[in-house]
Amino acid sequence: MPAHAMFRPEDIRFEVDVDPLIAELTRVLPDEGLIVHEAGRRAYECDGLSAYKQLPLLVAVPETIEQVQTVLRLCHEAGVPVVSRGSGTSLSGGSLPHPQGLLLAMGKFNRIHDIDADRRIARVDPGVRNLAISEAAAPYGLYYAPDPSSQIACSIGGNVGENAGGVHCLKYGLTVHNVLELTVVTMEGELTTIGSEALDAPGLDLLALMHGSEGMLGVIVEVKVQLLPHPLTKAVLMASFDNVEHGGHAVAGIIARGIIPGGLEMMDGAAIQAAEDFVHAGYDTDAAAILICELDGSEAEVADQMTAVQDCLREHGATRIQVAEDDEAKARFWAGRKAAFPAVGRISADYYCMDGTIPRKQLAYVLRRISELSAEQGLETVNVFHAGDGNLHPLILFDGNKPGQLEAAETLGSEILQLCVEVGGTVTGEHGVGVEKINEMCVQFATSEIEQFHAIKQAFDPAGLLNPGKAIPTLNRCAEFGRLHVHNGELPHPELERL
Amino acid sequence: MPAHAMFRPEDIRFEVDVDPLIAELTRVLPDEGLIVHEAGRRAYECDGLSAYKQLPLLVAVPETIEQVQTVLRLCHEAGVPVVSRGSGTSLSGGSLPHPQGLLLAMGKFNRIHDIDADRRIARVDPGVRNLAISEAAAPYGLYYAPDPSSQIACSIGGNVGENAGGVHCLKYGLTVHNVLELTVVTMEGELTTIGSEALDAPGLDLLALMHGSEGMLGVIVEVKVQLLPHPLTKAVLMASFDNVEHGGHAVAGIIARGIIPGGLEMMDGAAIQAAEDFVHAGYDTDAAAILICELDGSEAEVADQMTAVQDCLREHGATRIQVAEDDEAKARFWAGRKAAFPAVGRISADYYCMDGTIPRKQLAYVLRRISELSAEQGLETVNVFHAGDGNLHPLILFDGNKPGQLEAAETLGSEILQLCVEVGGTVTGEHGVGVEKINEMCVQFATSEIEQFHAIKQAFDPAGLLNPGKAIPTLNRCAEFGRLHVHNGELPHPELERL
Repeated sequence: MPAHAMFRPEDIRFEVDVDPLIAELTRVLPDEGLIVHEAGRRAYECDGLSAYKQLPLLVAVPETIEQVQTVLRLCHEAGVPVVSRGSGTSLSGGSLPHPQGLLLAMGKFNRIHDIDADRRIARVDPGVRNLAISEAAAPYGLYYAPDPSSQIACSIGGNVGENAGGVHCLKYGLTVHNVLELTVVTMEGELTTIGSEALDAPGLDLLALMHGSEGMLGVIVEVKVQLLPHPLTKAVLMASFDNVEHGGHAVAGIIARGIIPGGLEMMDGAAIQAAEDFVHAGYDTDAAAILICELDGSEAEVADQMTAVQDCLREHGATRIQVAEDDEAKARFWAGRKAAFPAVGRISADYYCMDGTIPRKQLAYVLRRISELSAEQGLETVNVFHAGDGNLHPLILFDGNKPGQLEAAETLGSEILQLCVEVGGTVTGEHGVGVEKINEMCVQFATSEIEQFHAIKQAFDPAGLLNPGKAIPTLNRCAEFGRLHVHNGELPHPELERL
Repeated sequence: MPAHAMFRPEDIRFEVDVDPLIAELTRVLPDEGLIVHEAGRRAYECDGLSAYKQLPLLVAVPETIEQVQTVLRLCHEAGVPVVSRGSGTSLSGGSLPHPQGLLLAMGKFNRIHDIDADRRIARVDPGVRNLAISEAAAPYGLYYAPDPSSQIACSIGGNVGENAGGVHCLKYGLTVHNVLELTVVTMEGELTTIGSEALDAPGLDLLALMHGSEGMLGVIVEVKVQLLPHPLTKAVLMASFDNVEHGGHAVAGIIARGIIPGGLEMMDGAAIQAAEDFVHAGYDTDAAAILICELDGSEAEVADQMTAVQDCLREHGATRIQVAEDDEAKARFWAGRKAAFPAVGRISADYYCMDGTIPRKQLAYVLRRISELSAEQGLETVNVFHAGDGNLHPLILFDGNKPGQLEAAETLGSEILQLCVEVGGTVTGEHGVGVEKINEMCVQFATSEIEQFHAIKQAFDPAGLLNPGKAIPTLNRCAEFGRLHVHNGELPHPELERL
């Protein structure tokens, strides 16, 4: 388990006599709505970042908004922290329980209340799965655009909390660009509505503020999302390059022409080989990089863009271009990309999926540095990325059973994120900060900026009870990590850091 | 002058001995950078909402970021409020001076630092005019998309403060969707960077929060905006309807087909007549409403959409469709719409331009109610609107020299905004709240929501010195306005309200 992000004694400020709280919660929650026994709580001890495990003090499974309000009000009165959780697919530990806190599991909030096809709006519970919204909208020819890889399982409430992206977010935006309104319960138990169906609203933009706030500002109990009509047609092509740099320039060239593809994904040689061995998608295993480009729109528009994109790819040195001739071929082209993570799982005992963004023009330099940094740690890295928006997913291969490899993978991961910041990027593109990247936030932001985050957090949650210890580091932690950083990777007080 | 929005004694909480502050400011600002004499301050007494006038205590005209920092730090220490101002084109009084405060005029911040054509990013001073950015980007085939009607004059810093829109914002987004990064000075004088060039950033979304915050959270000293390539081609058509309702349904029909026009504007019969008399654009003066629709993109895409849009218009009962055959005709079609406000100025002594949004499907009902409410006040209203996003601009005609007409226009304006809220819309689409709509915010938001806004304001500006009294009403004011509201327009304590 990564030491740097563990809860440390100073983070556990919440010591209360829990028996009166349990008595009150039992009264307001339905049968089996409060889980106290250890075996039951064990099911909630981690989310998608499963290297981190923490048993919560209590688990509540409310069924109504009123129950959520009461649970929060009671916890607020008792001074007990609350971590909310949707499907638990966070890759950064956003819904890792707090050892002295209540885990609020929103799984029973799974109803789709309304699909208004005329206004293209769906009103749904926060626990509804991302893909379920598109399935419910399909009879009307509509869908919900953001499509994180976990879309079969992840919940829309969690998508808001992490501002989830996906393959199509380059063209169709992140979660924040596709949500109109949220109903939220504050830590004090008050119900409030944030946002509206209008393009703009007066007052401060709290809707954007809620997106990516990782459960620190309130608990989402209802979501209104915008639906889109299915594009009339789609085309998919795949280009090979004998040099990653050429591929990077081709991406910039496509965007510079004013073409925003529905998807624009890149894989390096190692990723191509792993994917091809696994799903036999017909990938060009001689290539140093491939670019998969999906164009969507009307027939005429797509035909027009296909010509322009192919010209651009050839100009930038594509060695081979394959165009999917039918739906089966389109699905096959995507199959390799979508299977890239499990494919890598087959060739390595363990892997650590990173998530950072960089300016597109830095792509070649960053890939070279990742390769150098990997060599320094004696590890291999496989690269898959949302090329259009510069969102990298380096997969660090390691074997957790070999002494020191987990630590080396963690060090390498942190170095890669710091590299992203150095070149003008960020430490997370779409997976969030959670507990995983809390130290790297100290690299990304200045002290005054972190203080500003804390001030806003306090404006929503003065008692600091919502998901404490996540997303925004304390200045103490940054000071310690700063020392780490200055001392070139050596822990100045290992006993302190590892407590 | 509208009584309800005047500064009242309880708002003027800032009484300081100003001489030491003047001495210090004189030392740090360049010659003529501090305006103390009344004649000089007089030039800053109002913005685009010229019915409201207020002489500031002092005016500072800094030339460097360091000077802005020092001015804010000194005012913070002295407890003097600060109102920042760009070009002063706000239509809601956002930069109306504070009688006990310093007006920070950012006009000298007018440099375009950098146009990076490859990354399509412009880095500019906050006082740069909106249109100047597009002019500087034109040699690279790029432009800055949001285009408020005041784009010749309004500054990009002010655009951020009000989250400005424009005719093209339906397709290309509001200011918040086109700005990547802001450099901001806090009231304490600290310099901070908000946002990044990446699609998403970790931490709380302060960038969106700054947009539309009307100078309440910080002073913007640099802006990085996204540039777009010019569309390859444009087409413009104009459809007539003998019934406003049919026009409204046609708008919904176009959007429901997944077509997002570059512009989609509607005018009612009175607006058509006024515009035609003024600019002779060839508008159909027999129509009860006309719809102007601009489509942009590649040749093929536009041709495709033109067919679909015309089918849709005919389906919804368009009585006549005119397609602009050349650039001259396109310009003429737009000329009437762009001249609608001055055209109305020719037929009425005074007019009051409102700005509210409604769900598109409520268009017909809202127009009927506006007509009824106008009749009750004995006034006429002309309607021009951004139909695609449901943003109405009713122009209330009145004669300020006739006793009671200004008050009737104000009452009608407030009733129209309350109507917008009733049908699920908002009290401002793009002009902001400022001082003009501060009371209507009490209709739009619940007490707990307004408290939340104040808490966030306090997280940025604990002393409450940045643009006090604007944008977010005090709960006292809402309580008073609430009483007003309950008593059906009659002032319960006129002497209190009019102080």
